[in-house]
Amino acid sequence: MAQHRVGLVVLVDAKDPFKTVGVVSERDVVRAVAYEIDLEAPAETIATKNVVTIDHSEHVAKAAEAFRKHGIRHVVVTKDGKLYGVLSIRDLIREEAVLRELAAYYEWTFEPGMTA
Amino acid sequence: MAQHRVGLVVLVDAKDPFKTVGVVSERDVVRAVAYEIDLEAPAETIATKNVVTIDHSEHVAKAAEAFRKHGIRHVVVTKDGKLYGVLSIRDLIREEAVLRELAAYYEWTFEPGMTA
Repeated sequence: MAQHRVGLVVLVDAKDPFKTVGVVSERDVVRAVAYEIDLEAPAETIATKNVVTIDHSEHVAKAAEAFRKHGIRHVVVTKDGKLYGVLSIRDLIREEAVLRELAAYYEWTFEPGMTA
Repeated sequence: MAQHRVGLVVLVDAKDPFKTVGVVSERDVVRAVAYEIDLEAPAETIATKNVVTIDHSEHVAKAAEAFRKHGIRHVVVTKDGKLYGVLSIRDLIREEAVLRELAAYYEWTFEPGMTA
């Protein structure tokens, strides 16, 4: 994570590289440090097993909702139930078109003044 | 950080609580783990000293630019040069109004297809 400057590592099944079994986020590492978990232990020891996923065909606002609802910064994207990629909170602020899509979605979905 | 679920801790001068001397992000902790830095050492050992700040009166898009340009997720907000708060990448996707402000700013600032 430090070397590649990534915020999430996806753990996959040893026999099926498209099957997600967990994720390790920077927060998982911080938590492991805080609670003095042995950092030499296998990654799955500190991994989040209850992975939040969205299908590749879903609206980008679904990812934003997941980020807000779960307080996370990455969702695993699936296609036909298989690992397809990762979408990060950073991806949402890259392009004007995405921002406008999100704004339009919020407009008729969320209550005014609602906070995440 | 783990206990309060925050992504950034701001280190301030011992004599002046409004003077930022560094920040510790989750990434700093991950980097410390990766490079086997002693985690019992003072926080400033792993802190980022070159802190990215924006003035409280600046447009929110300036924060978005900083997030993109520096690959960070938090900026320290100052008022009259003093520590005023922290703005996170998550704060940018909370409200429709902010999303629209960002989109409008991108429209006439960034080249089409430009990536962070």
